[in-house]
Amino acid sequence: MNAPANHQFRLARRPVGMVQRSDFEFSQVPVVPPGDGEVLVKILYISLDPAMRGWMNEGKSYIPPVGIGEVMRAGAAGRVIASNDPAIAVGDHVIGILGVQEYAVARAKQLTKVDPGLVPLPVYLGTLGMPGMTAYFGLLEVGKATAGDTVVVSGAAGAVGQVVGQVAKIKGCRVVGIAGGHLRSIGFDAAIDYKSEDVKAALKQHCPKGVDVYFDNVGGEILDAVLTQLALHARIVICGAISQYNEATMKGPANYLSLLVNRATMQGMVVFDYASRYGEAAKEMAGWMASGQLKTREHIVEGIETFPDTLAKLFTGENTGKLVLKVAGS
Amino acid sequence: MNAPANHQFRLARRPVGMVQRSDFEFSQVPVVPPGDGEVLVKILYISLDPAMRGWMNEGKSYIPPVGIGEVMRAGAAGRVIASNDPAIAVGDHVIGILGVQEYAVARAKQLTKVDPGLVPLPVYLGTLGMPGMTAYFGLLEVGKATAGDTVVVSGAAGAVGQVVGQVAKIKGCRVVGIAGGHLRSIGFDAAIDYKSEDVKAALKQHCPKGVDVYFDNVGGEILDAVLTQLALHARIVICGAISQYNEATMKGPANYLSLLVNRATMQGMVVFDYASRYGEAAKEMAGWMASGQLKTREHIVEGIETFPDTLAKLFTGENTGKLVLKVAGS
Repeated sequence: MNAPANHQFRLARRPVGMVQRSDFEFSQVPVVPPGDGEVLVKILYISLDPAMRGWMNEGKSYIPPVGIGEVMRAGAAGRVIASNDPAIAVGDHVIGILGVQEYAVARAKQLTKVDPGLVPLPVYLGTLGMPGMTAYFGLLEVGKATAGDTVVVSGAAGAVGQVVGQVAKIKGCRVVGIAGGHLRSIGFDAAIDYKSEDVKAALKQHCPKGVDVYFDNVGGEILDAVLTQLALHARIVICGAISQYNEATMKGPANYLSLLVNRATMQGMVVFDYASRYGEAAKEMAGWMASGQLKTREHIVEGIETFPDTLAKLFTGENTGKLVLKVAGS
Repeated sequence: MNAPANHQFRLARRPVGMVQRSDFEFSQVPVVPPGDGEVLVKILYISLDPAMRGWMNEGKSYIPPVGIGEVMRAGAAGRVIASNDPAIAVGDHVIGILGVQEYAVARAKQLTKVDPGLVPLPVYLGTLGMPGMTAYFGLLEVGKATAGDTVVVSGAAGAVGQVVGQVAKIKGCRVVGIAGGHLRSIGFDAAIDYKSEDVKAALKQHCPKGVDVYFDNVGGEILDAVLTQLALHARIVICGAISQYNEATMKGPANYLSLLVNRATMQGMVVFDYASRYGEAAKEMAGWMASGQLKTREHIVEGIETFPDTLAKLFTGENTGKLVLKVAGS
């Protein structure tokens, strides 16, 4: 077979401020055959997530940074076109950390087989993938949301936020979503547009008994506004701080002493800690999807060459739903 | 009986920045007799605590602010000189929220009888009082410190901090204390002088495995430094933020995303929530004091008229041990 070319985005330098095209090198390398225990995947969809911005920075974090010159790290879904492992066959669909490229060689053990006949492939990168798992375990395990709680979620139009809001509703909570722009209803009790509204005043209006659980994807001024509206014994889930990722200096939550006044808790989470329980969560969420209680929304952009500009949409709040890059049709 | 005069400090205005003498009015009123169910207490010792600064500010907190013109709120210990309640007799010693004054009328129900034959009266305002209870429940219930943990405490020379450090040692933890100036050894494994040392570098040196529990009394830059040195699953107890109480604008912890990276928790506490268990804690701590494992240190200043200047010592870090104002000898 005449080896096809593999287009890749490699990290060219550490971004300063907002990520831009010149932070990457778009290159072309030959596709290489899989080694022992490995498979070759043709990538169909690439997941674009806020966490990717953090992976581009130097310094200690929960995962090593992407090295300069390395293929940019990303979750992806694809079809196996060559296999040197008996566990995975040619034609199988898989998801894994495959990078921003058209073809990836990966160890079979690090891939998860998925069935595109049950739900479309992009859903395995969103609601049934890392963002969905983050929402599920963050809300229920860290946030300990239970029926009757008032739950506020920021980044409510994003991949994680939309699932947080819907799962909270399924569990009997009152849900207020915060997003930039008009939040198309996915069953929230109230929505706040942080670009046009006074968030603190709106929270006061929509959460008359205070906020029991705040699922924070954004940090910055919105976190500070929610801190002023906590209920006693509130739980704040720190999942991310997308408003701060492109800033030169982090802004800390000036109102954090509200934790003291309200005997409240702020706890950080990393979804990988729940890996052994992904199956349990996916099963429950697939059930809610089948019964129509949980809707997924993907924002699909075509063409691997658009990667840097498409990634930037996450930080300008332009995406509506899980942002996915479509690389190939099949 | 010829009624003695009662000297009082009343709040004259809401302080801006550092508390000062002109924020109070020093006045003299006649001593009034107790009503039904009340007793008249001659105050011997007044407790000076960082929380008092917060009580002087307007705004919602865990307790209403002191009103302008009201006697400044403070815990105190004294001797009962008249009683209209069968539960408390003349000559009994009591503690309670009695205010910055020489005599107080109080409801018997709101007082706790104490025995100055067991430990000196000021200890009931410190290690066996609110600061001791704060240390005990904050460290063990909120911080969940257990043997082998590395515990860091700020304000380590203060009433709360010195008990936190010693109880942590008794429980088998490694303890690092942070204070302004040289920390006289009360059994800590290491001490950091934030006025002369680089706190972050010192923490790195003294906590090679990271910080499991941080008991924060100070906030500000020290909180930010500790955040950079957290161990996985660390617990931060937010007890106070004395570095910020006299500032016009609060500084939030810019490094709070370390909570995410380390799956760590930051939780606020108010000691009043543990009131039903004070007896249990006091009994255990009195036992440690009797066996010599727990030492108390009081910093006693004489004369009610020194109150504003003595209170200010808390914020300049001049006190060594529990700060108490001695009002009368007996």
